[in-house]
Order: sequence, then C-alpha cells, then structure tokens
Amino acid sequence: MRMVDLIEKKRDGHSLSKEEINFIIEGYTNGTILDYQMSSLAMAIYFQGMNDEESTNLSLAMLNSGDVMDLSSIKGIKVDKHSTGGVGDKTSLVLGPLVASLGVKVAKMSGRGLGHTGGTLDKLESIKGFNINQNMDSFKEIVNKTGIAIVGQTGNLCPADKKLYALRDVTGTVPSIPLIASSIMSKKLASGADAICLDVKVGSGAFMKTIEEGRKLANLMVNIGKNCGRKMTAILTDMDEPLGFAIGNSLEVIEAINTLKGHGPQDLTDLCVEIGSYLALDANVCQTREEACLKLRENLQNGKAFNKFMEMVIAQGGDVNYVMDINNFAKASEVIPVCAQETGYIAYIDALSIGLAAMLLGAGRETKDDKIDMAVGIVLDKKIGDYVNKGDVVCYIHTNGLRTEEAISKVCDAFKYTKEKTEKKLILDVIR
Amino acid sequence: MRMVDLIEKKRDGHSLSKEEINFIIEGYTNGTILDYQMSSLAMAIYFQGMNDEESTNLSLAMLNSGDVMDLSSIKGIKVDKHSTGGVGDKTSLVLGPLVASLGVKVAKMSGRGLGHTGGTLDKLESIKGFNINQNMDSFKEIVNKTGIAIVGQTGNLCPADKKLYALRDVTGTVPSIPLIASSIMSKKLASGADAICLDVKVGSGAFMKTIEEGRKLANLMVNIGKNCGRKMTAILTDMDEPLGFAIGNSLEVIEAINTLKGHGPQDLTDLCVEIGSYLALDANVCQTREEACLKLRENLQNGKAFNKFMEMVIAQGGDVNYVMDINNFAKASEVIPVCAQETGYIAYIDALSIGLAAMLLGAGRETKDDKIDMAVGIVLDKKIGDYVNKGDVVCYIHTNGLRTEEAISKVCDAFKYTKEKTEKKLILDVIR
Repeated sequence: MRMVDLIEKKRDGHSLSKEEINFIIEGYTNGTILDYQMSSLAMAIYFQGMNDEESTNLSLAMLNSGDVMDLSSIKGIKVDKHSTGGVGDKTSLVLGPLVASLGVKVAKMSGRGLGHTGGTLDKLESIKGFNINQNMDSFKEIVNKTGIAIVGQTGNLCPADKKLYALRDVTGTVPSIPLIASSIMSKKLASGADAICLDVKVGSGAFMKTIEEGRKLANLMVNIGKNCGRKMTAILTDMDEPLGFAIGNSLEVIEAINTLKGHGPQDLTDLCVEIGSYLALDANVCQTREEACLKLRENLQNGKAFNKFMEMVIAQGGDVNYVMDINNFAKASEVIPVCAQETGYIAYIDALSIGLAAMLLGAGRETKDDKIDMAVGIVLDKKIGDYVNKGDVVCYIHTNGLRTEEAISKVCDAFKYTKEKTEKKLILDVIR
Repeated sequence: MRMVDLIEKKRDGHSLSKEEINFIIEGYTNGTILDYQMSSLAMAIYFQGMNDEESTNLSLAMLNSGDVMDLSSIKGIKVDKHSTGGVGDKTSLVLGPLVASLGVKVAKMSGRGLGHTGGTLDKLESIKGFNINQNMDSFKEIVNKTGIAIVGQTGNLCPADKKLYALRDVTGTVPSIPLIASSIMSKKLASGADAICLDVKVGSGAFMKTIEEGRKLANLMVNIGKNCGRKMTAILTDMDEPLGFAIGNSLEVIEAINTLKGHGPQDLTDLCVEIGSYLALDANVCQTREEACLKLRENLQNGKAFNKFMEMVIAQGGDVNYVMDINNFAKASEVIPVCAQETGYIAYIDALSIGLAAMLLGAGRETKDDKIDMAVGIVLDKKIGDYVNKGDVVCYIHTNGLRTEEAISKVCDAFKYTKEKTEKKLILDVIR
C-alpha cells in the first residue's frame, strides 16, 4: 500500500477500507507517513467526506493508536458525557453528581479550556485542593466508592488523534464533520464508558453553525458509538446565548453548586435533567424517561445531588468549605455593571463574544501556557426574551483590572435587541 | 499574514491576491512555510481551482523564486516550444532546426525522460559527443552564431516549482490544471523566450484525457503567457497513438534526421510544420501562415533544415558522422517482429503501453538514477487506419535482451482493431 494512492482514492471520491485506514493511522503514528501526506488527505476528506463505516474505522484506528481504558473493575454501567464546546457550559459539574446520585457510575475524563471555551478541569481547580490528576487505580477506586470522579486524561489515549488534531489546526482542515466526529469519538471510546451522551452545540458561537450541520455531526457520532457497541444519545442544544448566567471559573462553580441545590438557572437545570434522563435509562436505573426526569428533579431538591458533589470534592482532595460556603471562593476586586444600549427585548447574546471577553479578563487561555484567573468573568443579569429599558443593567463584569475596557466593549456588542419577544428553545433535537 | 488563513480562504472558494501568492511562494522557498501546509493548500487548489489572474501570479512568484534567463544579448525574437509529454515525441529535434533554418532564433532548454515519456536531452546524447551541458555564455553564443541550441537547464530556475512539484508528486495533487499550467509556464517564462508554442497532448496516454481538459489547460497557459507579454500559441494534438513510427532514443533521432531530409512520417512532419508556422509568424520572418508553411516544407526538401541540424550538432560538440550516416548509431542486438492478433483496421495504439514497453527494454528510466540504453525501443510498422491480416507484422521490438517478453506482451495489448476504418485527426485545435 502507498499513501499517495490512498490520498488519490479519497480525492476521487472513493471510500477507504478498514485496512487502508489502519495503514494510514498506524503509519502516521509511527512516523512512516509524514505530515505533508496526512494534511493533503485531511483536505481531501474535507471535500469528499467519509461515510459512517469509514468514520467508525478511523475512530477505532485512532483509539488503537494508544492506551484504552479498562473500566471493567468498576461495577455497573459506566456513563460519560461530552460537549462540543460552549460558553458558560458547566453542565458536567451538575450532571455528573446528579446522575451519580441515582446510583449511575460516572467515570469522566475532562479537558482544559482554550480560547473562548472554558474547561471543566480549570473550573474544578477553583476549589482549593481539588486534584484532577489521579492515576488509573485511584480514578477507578473513587468511582467505585463515591460513584463519580472527574479527572484529567490518564495514560496515553489516542496519540494519533492528538497528532492529527494539531496538524488540522494549522492546515485549514478542522471543520470536517467526519474528522470532528472521529476525533471526539476516538477519545470517548478510549475512555471506556458503556453509555455516552453528546451535547452538540448549534449556533453562531458554536462549531456547528446550523441545525443541519449539527444533526449531521450528531448522527455520525451516534452511529460510530453504536457501531462500537456503546449506548449513544446526542442532544442538539442552542448556543445563541451562554448557558446559565455565569461565565468564568469560580463563578461557574458557584452557579453549579446553586443548581445542585435546586435553585439554578432554568436552562442549565433543564439541560442537565434532559441529558441525565437518557443516561439513567441507559444505565438501567429507571424504566421510563418520565420516571428518570422526576427522580432527577427530586434529587436537585432533596440535597442528594448536592451531597454527591460534596462526596466527589472530598474524594478528590478538595476543600469542602468552598462547597459549604461559596464566600470562600476567590473574588474579583471590582464588579462593573454593563447597561443596555437600547430599549427592547433581548434577541441574542453572542456566546463567542462573551467567551472572548471572559478570556480577555483572564478567565481563559489565549495559548496553552497562559495562567488563569479563577475569580474573574461575566455574570449575565438578563437572557434572551427579557425586556429591558436603555440603561438597565444586562450583566456584570468581574475583573481584577486586566483588559477590562476591551472586555466591556466586547460584551456590549454581544447583546442584540428587538421590538418583538423572541421565543427560545434550548433543546433542538435528540438523536438516539 | 498567516498561511492557515490563506489555506482556509482557498478552501472556501475565494481567490488569492498577488500579495498572498507571493507570501506563500516566498515562504515556501525560504522554509518558513512547511510542506504540510503547502500540500493542504495544493489539495484545496485541486478542488477549488484558481482563476487566470491567480495562475499568472503563481507562475510569476515561482519564476521569481530563482534565476531568470536574460536572452537580450541574442539578436532577434527568441522562440521556445514545450510539449506536455508524449510517446515517440521527437518534435523538438525536427522543429528546432526547421524554424532556425528560416532565421528564427531557437533557444531551447529541454529535460530528461522519466517513466513512459522520453526526454529530448537523452535522445540528443545518442549522438556521440553531443554536449547538452552548456553554460549561459556558450548557450547564447551558439544561438547567436548558429541560430539554435538545445541544452539542459542552466542556472537555478524556479526552485519553488521544483520543490512544489516534488511535493505534489507524493500528495495526490499533480492533476490540477492551474498547478500544471503554473508549473510549466513558470519554467517557460524563466527561460526567457519571446514567443512560445505549447503542444498539449490529449488522449488516454496523456495527462489530459479529454479535449475539454486539454483546452482548459491550453487556454490557461496561453493566458498566463500573454499576461506576461509573451506571444503564445497552444496546439492540441491527439495522443491515441505514438507520434511517428520510432520510440527509443537513437531510433527517434534517426527518424528525426529522416524527417529533416524530407522523408519522415506524415504526422510528425505535419505537426512540425504546424507549430513552426506559428513560431515563424510570431518571429516576423513570414507574413502569412500559408507562406510560413510553404517555406518550412521547402526547407525540409532543399536540405536547409537538415543542414541546420548538422550545424547544431557541430556547435554542441557532437560527432557529425552520426548525422551523415545513421549506421553509426548504436544498434540493438536483436530485432523481433510483433504480429497482429486480429484481422481488421488498427483503431488505436495505446501510447502509454508502448512507452512503458520501451522503458522496460531500457529506453527509459523507472527512477531518476536509472541508466538508459540508447539503442533499444520499438518501431511501428502500422498506424491507426491501416488494414492488417492476423499475423501481419505491426511493429518491431529492438532489444538487447532486457525484459523482452514483458515488453512484447505490453506492445501486443497496445494494439486495438476494428472492422470499420477509423478516421484520425492529429491536430485537434489551435489556441492563440
């Protein structure tokens, strides 16, 4: 087999076989296939696509390029969740303890934030002492004991995906649905969960700009997972505004804690219950979705979800006083209100601009090595559909003085107003 | 400017500006833009194309990446000719002396053969002593004195093209019309001629499989040349059979000599007169095409074209006894007839198979470092439209014993027969 022939085959619109895809990924991982052939193939895939079988084989080839997690020593059905990247997206912080409170085993590996999107690991580290670095044994032990652990990647998972993603980033080949799907699914499959729920964000602030694109990506990932014997759900959710009110690390953890206590924002609560209900079904702890939704909402009210979060924090070495009293979290030195520049209904809050503004304040990283300020960020006071008079406060900037003016200007531009009230729907579709 | 943004721009179907193309080619030449970005861009160009302006700018950027020939010390209008690669294509050997015999200055840089196509330089070296390595000064001196020189590349012409072509070869990005056109035209422009005639081969044995593709390539190259102030002609010629009868180095030189003496194959003679007539017009040595054709045919009969060839051989150090008596050329040890396997009209002689068969015998190179056997090759006895009975000789294999059986089998497969006589047309179109 010669790589140039396989590039030409894909360029001319033919499908690649399992053997051919394995040849490519093995060669790329061990260095016999070089970057310049791989980038050319990636661009051919951008234009010609890949079918479900090819995408499954690509996911499996990347999965097999490194370690694969063996979670068999954890009793019961293990669940995992993934989001394609949102602003103010603290879903994992709420969802994990929430479904674990029903007895579901949540073994979750998360990532750090980059650019305008935050990372679950960074947020958790705003709790003093919280240790996201667990070796394989202690990770499994914590899940077995408390029912949940959220950790950074352990082991050498999917090195081929890591190498390919870095290449795609500099060769204009990121926005290819089969390449995105295979990248996400290779990591999810390698993480070893039995049931997986994917939160596919759709909107101008998301990777997938339209519902049609989002549906294509969701369908493909669900099919890849099913082809590999996993229980799969994908939820298409709107990203025409940030999720919840808080954007920024400790601000989001505080909002997650409030949500786990039953008084969180409606959109965040609804999304966690929706995702949780499918995972509860797939983990066989409920018989119907109605039953699952009811129990999940109960556990947000009766303290069980919140207690599970506390158990996780304790098991991972975090200071439980932060959870008990949110006043312990680091606070920004200044809180500046931002006011509506028009009178009318809020039509749209550009999540990308809000995410970038938070990054400017220090809540996120421009490059991998930037340090994060846990305290800073943005707290919305109004959401889409709310009526405001010009001059009313629409949000607050929590700042320690870094690039504040720039951030305020970005935030102002993020809000769009209309005369008519916009009807919003958070959950656009569910694919199982 | 960032290369990744330019890749995405082209990927999304936009045109690249002159500044952007210069940035890319300068960066690629000096190593700040790496192969993996260049190959990804080349694949995007394969799918999205480039317009005339982009292709012109790409040609100029590659031209400016190295030395540019200054032929101003040669008096008069300098002409050049290029073929996109044929089998049995000894046109340059005949055409050069032929137009030079009308007083046109022919300053031609040629290449060596690779794969199934032969190279003019290799063919000329079958004449003992013929020196294709001339420095710039002696090249110009020979053209000034004798009116013609055919040499290998001198100086560092178009290093960006050389680097890009090697990359395209292994990344599935060769068959892109704007990239082919820019590659050819950058070298032709760098070679410094005022008037250029391109012979674009069309057919299953050629790069361009259809007349439509060939016309696109021809039009684009003519436009690039005109945009750069050159007089341009492109001739689309059929490649459904080899040109002339002889394939192989000394065999082709002998056929060229016969043609220069006025008794060559009709297709080769017609093509040389056709191309020559446009170059004679562009060089202002004739007023009309009719006059040019007449004078060119006269010079094939009256010995002037043949004498010019002798002058060139002498000027470049070749042994004139070879030209005076073709029995001096090296001969193959064995000449094996190949017979028709069917009765009927010859419909098609696959040039690719014939070229590959000649390569197997040792007439061509599989890799750049292979040595060539000057004596071996194939001489057709029949051409398209000829009637044969099963068992009649259709061609002769000239071999020194290398892979002869394999070559014979390829040659047999190359001939296709029909009941009805096929009408053939060599010159399909002329674009000026």
